[in-house]
Amino acid sequence: MVIGANRGIGLELVKAQLREVGVSRVIATHRPGVELQKLDILTRLHGERLSLRPLDVTEDASLEAFARYLKTQEGGIDLTIHAAGILHEENIDPEKSFAQCNARNLKRLFEVNSVGPLMVAAALLPAHSRKRRFTFAALSAMVGSIGDNRLGGWYGYRASKTALNQFVKTLANECRVKYPRASIVAIHPGTTDTDLSRPFQRNVKPGKLYSAEQSASRILNVLKDIGSEESGQFLNWDGSQIPW
Amino acid sequence: MVIGANRGIGLELVKAQLREVGVSRVIATHRPGVELQKLDILTRLHGERLSLRPLDVTEDASLEAFARYLKTQEGGIDLTIHAAGILHEENIDPEKSFAQCNARNLKRLFEVNSVGPLMVAAALLPAHSRKRRFTFAALSAMVGSIGDNRLGGWYGYRASKTALNQFVKTLANECRVKYPRASIVAIHPGTTDTDLSRPFQRNVKPGKLYSAEQSASRILNVLKDIGSEESGQFLNWDGSQIPW
Repeated sequence: MVIGANRGIGLELVKAQLREVGVSRVIATHRPGVELQKLDILTRLHGERLSLRPLDVTEDASLEAFARYLKTQEGGIDLTIHAAGILHEENIDPEKSFAQCNARNLKRLFEVNSVGPLMVAAALLPAHSRKRRFTFAALSAMVGSIGDNRLGGWYGYRASKTALNQFVKTLANECRVKYPRASIVAIHPGTTDTDLSRPFQRNVKPGKLYSAEQSASRILNVLKDIGSEESGQFLNWDGSQIPW
Repeated sequence: MVIGANRGIGLELVKAQLREVGVSRVIATHRPGVELQKLDILTRLHGERLSLRPLDVTEDASLEAFARYLKTQEGGIDLTIHAAGILHEENIDPEKSFAQCNARNLKRLFEVNSVGPLMVAAALLPAHSRKRRFTFAALSAMVGSIGDNRLGGWYGYRASKTALNQFVKTLANECRVKYPRASIVAIHPGTTDTDLSRPFQRNVKPGKLYSAEQSASRILNVLKDIGSEESGQFLNWDGSQIPW
């Protein structure tokens, strides 16, 4: 299952999973009202192997309906990747300085990038039995690392991903007892050529900007090898650990 | 200057600073409408050495008025400690499990504990000249450490303090150039006997619960020794560093 699947890395994760013969079914969620052209093409190609579901991770009623839907998916879901997130949107740009910070935008970033994935996890986990092996991975970002942070700026995006990392760690701790075979991780996809990063690609070093397809493939490559021992980690796209 | 000074550690920080002969003036902020009895007693004892200022760190207009006030304080402020924060309030209790998480409460914790101190710093910093030596310390919490987190629960409080730590680190990075003699740190006061911790003191080990007066004294003891080299650190009450 991919949360936030209508574009960017989320869309490529769906495509990559549909190419895998061993994957019997893919659930792709998207915000209500967004452009679904690319997902609709996939639905025509793959029929019932692909299920589209509207989900607004910032709306309680949408999350509740989603939780009910997940409970009808017998046996739970092997792999869920939360790819929904924002760096900029109308009236929000990453802050170059504390002088550009405003409370409304900061709260919006926490709402979408931190609270959203936690509420999705809270809807997802009860759909699994205690003995089930499954993975929940949230796309985080290297700039969310505090230990690795040597620059200023991007206050809201950074801290929203840092908070997400803390949620992932806390979930992993709680689930070690309740779902001992679960792997719950944060993963940095590498800087990827998507709508999210497009306005900020000028400062990316040559050869360090990857296509969404490459990033999706690398993420899946890391996730296929992890087990419950890796639960609670903040992983880079090459499988190495990123400092908190 | 102490932000959130009407009770708990904030109030004791004000008292401790007023006891210091070398401290010519203390500014104490409090949320509008809270009980001011204890601060009023101090005002009667100390006259013009103590200035009370209403400040709601979640209200833009209040922050803007505060920023204007700070610019009238010629020379800036040697030491600011942000002590305002919540763990519980009406309808908010720390979550024992992801199943108790709700978006409204999580957003409220980010608003008060993470965004609030950042917006206070953004109002405070421009009141200083580039060459001024000064300290901004935000009260964080050990449970905000991701590296040290081995438990579940307390999702919102934990992540709001983790996000605060990222804001502190990012501010320190930005200020290294703009205010090279500033020290901007997060500090853990130790578990303190205040309204904040009172409902949760049962699990505190004997001898590990300190009075607000003790905690205030230890915080000031750590802060008096730090300089710009320590800027960007997450300090424990004994001056040691806490992992992110």
